[in-house]
Amino acid sequence: MKKNIKLNMSRRIRRTPYTNKVEQCGVSDFTVVNHMLLPKGYKNSIEEDYWHLRSHVQIWDVSCQRQVQVSGPDAFKLVQKITPRSIKDMKIGKCFYIPIIDENAGMINDPVLLKLDEDMFWISIADSDILLWAKGIALGSNFNVKIIEPDVYPLAIQGPKAESLMTSIFGEEIKKIRFFNFKIFNFLGTKQIIARSGYSKQDGFEIYLKGFEMGEKLWDVIFNAGKEYNISPGCPNLIDRVEAGLLSYGNDFTKENNPFECNLEKYCNGNSIHDFIGKDALRKIHSEGIKQKIKGIIFDGDPCKPTGKALPVFVNKNVKIGQVTSGVYSPRLKKNVGLSMILKDYWDEGQKLQVETSDGNMRNGIVTSLPFSE
Amino acid sequence: MKKNIKLNMSRRIRRTPYTNKVEQCGVSDFTVVNHMLLPKGYKNSIEEDYWHLRSHVQIWDVSCQRQVQVSGPDAFKLVQKITPRSIKDMKIGKCFYIPIIDENAGMINDPVLLKLDEDMFWISIADSDILLWAKGIALGSNFNVKIIEPDVYPLAIQGPKAESLMTSIFGEEIKKIRFFNFKIFNFLGTKQIIARSGYSKQDGFEIYLKGFEMGEKLWDVIFNAGKEYNISPGCPNLIDRVEAGLLSYGNDFTKENNPFECNLEKYCNGNSIHDFIGKDALRKIHSEGIKQKIKGIIFDGDPCKPTGKALPVFVNKNVKIGQVTSGVYSPRLKKNVGLSMILKDYWDEGQKLQVETSDGNMRNGIVTSLPFSE
Repeated sequence: MKKNIKLNMSRRIRRTPYTNKVEQCGVSDFTVVNHMLLPKGYKNSIEEDYWHLRSHVQIWDVSCQRQVQVSGPDAFKLVQKITPRSIKDMKIGKCFYIPIIDENAGMINDPVLLKLDEDMFWISIADSDILLWAKGIALGSNFNVKIIEPDVYPLAIQGPKAESLMTSIFGEEIKKIRFFNFKIFNFLGTKQIIARSGYSKQDGFEIYLKGFEMGEKLWDVIFNAGKEYNISPGCPNLIDRVEAGLLSYGNDFTKENNPFECNLEKYCNGNSIHDFIGKDALRKIHSEGIKQKIKGIIFDGDPCKPTGKALPVFVNKNVKIGQVTSGVYSPRLKKNVGLSMILKDYWDEGQKLQVETSDGNMRNGIVTSLPFSE
Repeated sequence: MKKNIKLNMSRRIRRTPYTNKVEQCGVSDFTVVNHMLLPKGYKNSIEEDYWHLRSHVQIWDVSCQRQVQVSGPDAFKLVQKITPRSIKDMKIGKCFYIPIIDENAGMINDPVLLKLDEDMFWISIADSDILLWAKGIALGSNFNVKIIEPDVYPLAIQGPKAESLMTSIFGEEIKKIRFFNFKIFNFLGTKQIIARSGYSKQDGFEIYLKGFEMGEKLWDVIFNAGKEYNISPGCPNLIDRVEAGLLSYGNDFTKENNPFECNLEKYCNGNSIHDFIGKDALRKIHSEGIKQKIKGIIFDGDPCKPTGKALPVFVNKNVKIGQVTSGVYSPRLKKNVGLSMILKDYWDEGQKLQVETSDGNMRNGIVTSLPFSE
């Protein structure tokens, strides 16, 4: 009894500078992230979009990656307090993927941090109000910082032809941006931050457009220049994301999970260096060991359609050992693949298991490493 | 070029204990509040639902009104710190509508506060992560509190027959609950909080169901007993809400607005009593006066369909004086009505103006008081 459910629009679900353009391109699906529209599908199937993304270039409205701008004398101190990753040696122009955890070491976001200046950071967030978290801590701690949501709306250009397209607009300097770095470029007389980054495993860039009113101009310039490169409107692609092992906050992990369960040990390197919220809890978890972890699962059967629900995972068809949190059929691997939270006794690669899909069938599968192999 | 946009489902957009039931009832529209599904339409039109709500009884899945549970020795102190409304004289069993503001006196939520015990509160929130705000402040201030999102999912029973229906299930004691009070009732061996409250101007109750696994049982018991009262699945109704002048956070006001602009002066009575975040800013605004305020607007022309966008409001067809933030056609008043943020020089009742609807037409209208008169 599957049917299409409409999204009820209201001012609370904020439109972006690109929403008019996205609608003109025939968007068919939205989701909501940070109280803002995120396009999730156009005219083509997710498989068609997947193959296109791997071959050409796409333009994605990812304005919902809201920025939390932290500035002022205590900006460094505040940012360092909210993440277990050390930012001591972070240089201006760098992007850092950082876990943000609460006092129990539960994950409350996994943003990308941009260092704009010695006393100015942007936290480019996943779906939770880190603006309120950061402000609450700053107010409680009497930090001398200013924290706002700036007038900034990221637009992602993703795919193997992204570099050529971006070079045709912004010049050769684009090629010098290394992965997870940003530089500042001129656009119609404004200064704009462009990072080499994006929520796909293809190459790409994110333009952190400053100025809502510039949005349609930026979209048009890229879209028109992109025709030569077979540009298409797109969005984060579930197949590409799962294959790449890119995690999604709220889907693959929640505040019930700690960073070690999410394979983020390497971003908890501040444990012996600085103080941060959740440090005691994180140390305790580290010494006691974790009970579950995100692994890959490959499983058989008909192509698994995204259902919006986690799929339970069993051994011997009745012992529950975890769940597939993001599952989809990979047309390239010709198997169903899933990011999955799996209990310790069963997380070794090669472990046989069964996945219960939403039609009630049990599919045979095995545990794999991440990302899924080529 | 209006078309229906699908909501892309994922685990991040959380299902509720009632979502299966809501789907079985033929839900057609959802929105997302607090990272959770909120039904926004079934088979009938918004006008049909409006007339039904005024005559019979409806069952609403409002689980998205998430609870922020604050408990411990400093619970009172923390709650008092985050609202300008004095809770000094609040008794156990009471519900208080409270503004929550930031350090600039910008509104960040307008929840209902429930006092469960001297050291235990629930904050029943609108759409922003007050869990993170409250925890951030508590951590920064070293308050001795525990703050969690409990396993609680409000279900609203609204309409003139709500009392009869609820009495048939929970007994005569239901009738003794006064507006914005709650009592504890037995349900299949569990203790459940039931308040006389709800997001409509009809009479009604909200059951703060504790225990996800009890959700479908509760729904079935109410739905079956409700057949005698012509029960229907429903949701907050835009026509009823606008007529009643009930505000919606994110729609009618945002963090750019202060409580005075939202007509919430009477909930800022702690100004001379206690300290709270935003007190200095609120005092300054109070002494300088506000520049705009939420008023009613009645305007002519064809029935105005909800568009998801604010509608600009003008005088002399070119001087912008504000915007309709929630507008809809009232089939009872036979006029379009709108909650509107209007500049000071133009907010007097009877002020003539023009509303620009999404078809580009200018409709004549006037400023009115709130709620809209009978």
